[in-house]
Amino acid sequence: MQNKNFIRKKITPIDVVHLAKAIQSGNFIALSRGITLCESKKQADRELANKLVKLCLPLSGNSIRIGITGVPGVGKSTFIENFGIHLIKNTKKKVAVLAVDPSSSKTKGSILGDKTRMEKLSTNPHAYIRPSPSSGSLGGVANQTRETIILCEAAGFEIIIVETVGVGQSETEVKEMTDFFLLLMLAGAGDELQGIKKGIMEMADGLLINKADGENVLNAKKARREYSNAFHLFSMSESGWTPQVDLCSALESINMDSAWKMVQDYITHTKDNGFFEKQRKKQLRFWFLKTIDELMHNSFYNSASLKGHLKELESKVEAKSISPFEAASEIFEAFKKSIK
Amino acid sequence: MQNKNFIRKKITPIDVVHLAKAIQSGNFIALSRGITLCESKKQADRELANKLVKLCLPLSGNSIRIGITGVPGVGKSTFIENFGIHLIKNTKKKVAVLAVDPSSSKTKGSILGDKTRMEKLSTNPHAYIRPSPSSGSLGGVANQTRETIILCEAAGFEIIIVETVGVGQSETEVKEMTDFFLLLMLAGAGDELQGIKKGIMEMADGLLINKADGENVLNAKKARREYSNAFHLFSMSESGWTPQVDLCSALESINMDSAWKMVQDYITHTKDNGFFEKQRKKQLRFWFLKTIDELMHNSFYNSASLKGHLKELESKVEAKSISPFEAASEIFEAFKKSIK
Repeated sequence: MQNKNFIRKKITPIDVVHLAKAIQSGNFIALSRGITLCESKKQADRELANKLVKLCLPLSGNSIRIGITGVPGVGKSTFIENFGIHLIKNTKKKVAVLAVDPSSSKTKGSILGDKTRMEKLSTNPHAYIRPSPSSGSLGGVANQTRETIILCEAAGFEIIIVETVGVGQSETEVKEMTDFFLLLMLAGAGDELQGIKKGIMEMADGLLINKADGENVLNAKKARREYSNAFHLFSMSESGWTPQVDLCSALESINMDSAWKMVQDYITHTKDNGFFEKQRKKQLRFWFLKTIDELMHNSFYNSASLKGHLKELESKVEAKSISPFEAASEIFEAFKKSIK
Repeated sequence: MQNKNFIRKKITPIDVVHLAKAIQSGNFIALSRGITLCESKKQADRELANKLVKLCLPLSGNSIRIGITGVPGVGKSTFIENFGIHLIKNTKKKVAVLAVDPSSSKTKGSILGDKTRMEKLSTNPHAYIRPSPSSGSLGGVANQTRETIILCEAAGFEIIIVETVGVGQSETEVKEMTDFFLLLMLAGAGDELQGIKKGIMEMADGLLINKADGENVLNAKKARREYSNAFHLFSMSESGWTPQVDLCSALESINMDSAWKMVQDYITHTKDNGFFEKQRKKQLRFWFLKTIDELMHNSFYNSASLKGHLKELESKVEAKSISPFEAASEIFEAFKKSIK
């Protein structure tokens, strides 16, 4: 009993200022500890995390943030590993790899288990790999990943890769926290069967057709032509950039250089025309306003007293016995009363 | 003076039950009066409008609702006029044409002035044309259009065409109030220069390449091939329907029949697989939940006491002196206090 108490007392309370300094000196253990703090759901931890993020904010923003998506089986892990190693070798920059998709049976192919699979990258002293938080609502996970980016940047990482599985809800959020959004696809797998969600193609700044090796090369070239045409028709982006399509073979590490060149070209293009800075500011505003909306949304939908009322009105709306607008007014009045 | 008082007294208060009956008997004047009531911003009118909509709701839902979009100059008015006449002649159905875009200098090409331009259609006893409300926020206008659809359906219209200019914010809302979303495009005008907003192509259930006449036919056929390919690559819709691409000439009334066949094929397809009913219910829920969000949003953003605070925090967020999440928590607490 005495022993137990002793142990409990020995747990050092977190000194956030000290932790921030350690992170900023590039200490990986401190970085991991900081990220764990940001992922915690305890109110006390949340307050410490806010302080930590605040201390790291001034040092953030100096990286290139790359979002990468593609359905399981497209070769994302292999690509990220070999691309990361290519970057470390050729740019002398430090590379961090993060993931946003919460673990689930669906995302077993995600980097959750990749610490072992990305062996070469995870043992490289210039790389840091952080699996995605194992739980939490998507919005929460996205917020945590945003904070993780800030900590990684403060720790001196100059290239941040944020991975997402292209079948979920998280792509929009990754798009809103990265500078360049890269989509990995396969050729000759029956394009419409690749399971990429509607709307994701439109987010891409670049598309790589992976596994373009051996007999696949011809098919891959055909796919490149088709996707290039499609981008030409669909794209009207504010950045003035037409998404590029290229081939690669992650497994054989082919075209890692041209993939990186694509990113660099985009960065140069958008820094020159001011879009880069504009988008970064827009993203900060986005997260601010989105969080306000989320807080309001949660305070409404988590209100136990409104739940039954909401359900009842939903049924009435579907049965057309009340108009959607009248039903909304009714429940909003109830909400205002409940918040008092 | 006496005279004036007399006139004022003569204004009959609106008898909503009577008005609903008149609308349901197919009286165009009553229909127009009902729509005007729905468009009014006065609180007293709003309450009457709610009652009227409620009375008409049980009779609504029995039409095919078609959203039509395309940039100014694509020939929307001509198309709607000749398509409408074709429908009346060949289906014996009554056709209503509505618009959602609020008047502005930008949308002068919209049907606002088309009562005179759509001469043949507007004088047809089986057609009803209603220009868009001349003012109001977009959300408000969309809500009014939703109510107008209900009144038109109660009045016996079996085909409702909702027009929007494909350059604004209203396309998502039209998509959410119609069964079939039709996009009009031009061939050979430099596709990327047509000014269609990103994301609109993806909403389309069908695309018509207009002005496919004379020398344009070859170009139009080429464009059809390209768009068909693009749809094939991009589309992964829940309805199981691949958007169709066809040519037409609104001016020469060519292919109005195949345009209608496209709509019918879609309706048959989606009624068979249950998507039609599912989407209608989803749309009702959408408007219910959207209106709740709007009411919350408005009560937040219209709060005079929060405005300065919000602006100040926005600047801090952009300057990275506070994180978006911390800033959001701060203002949400202020909001809760303000609502009390």
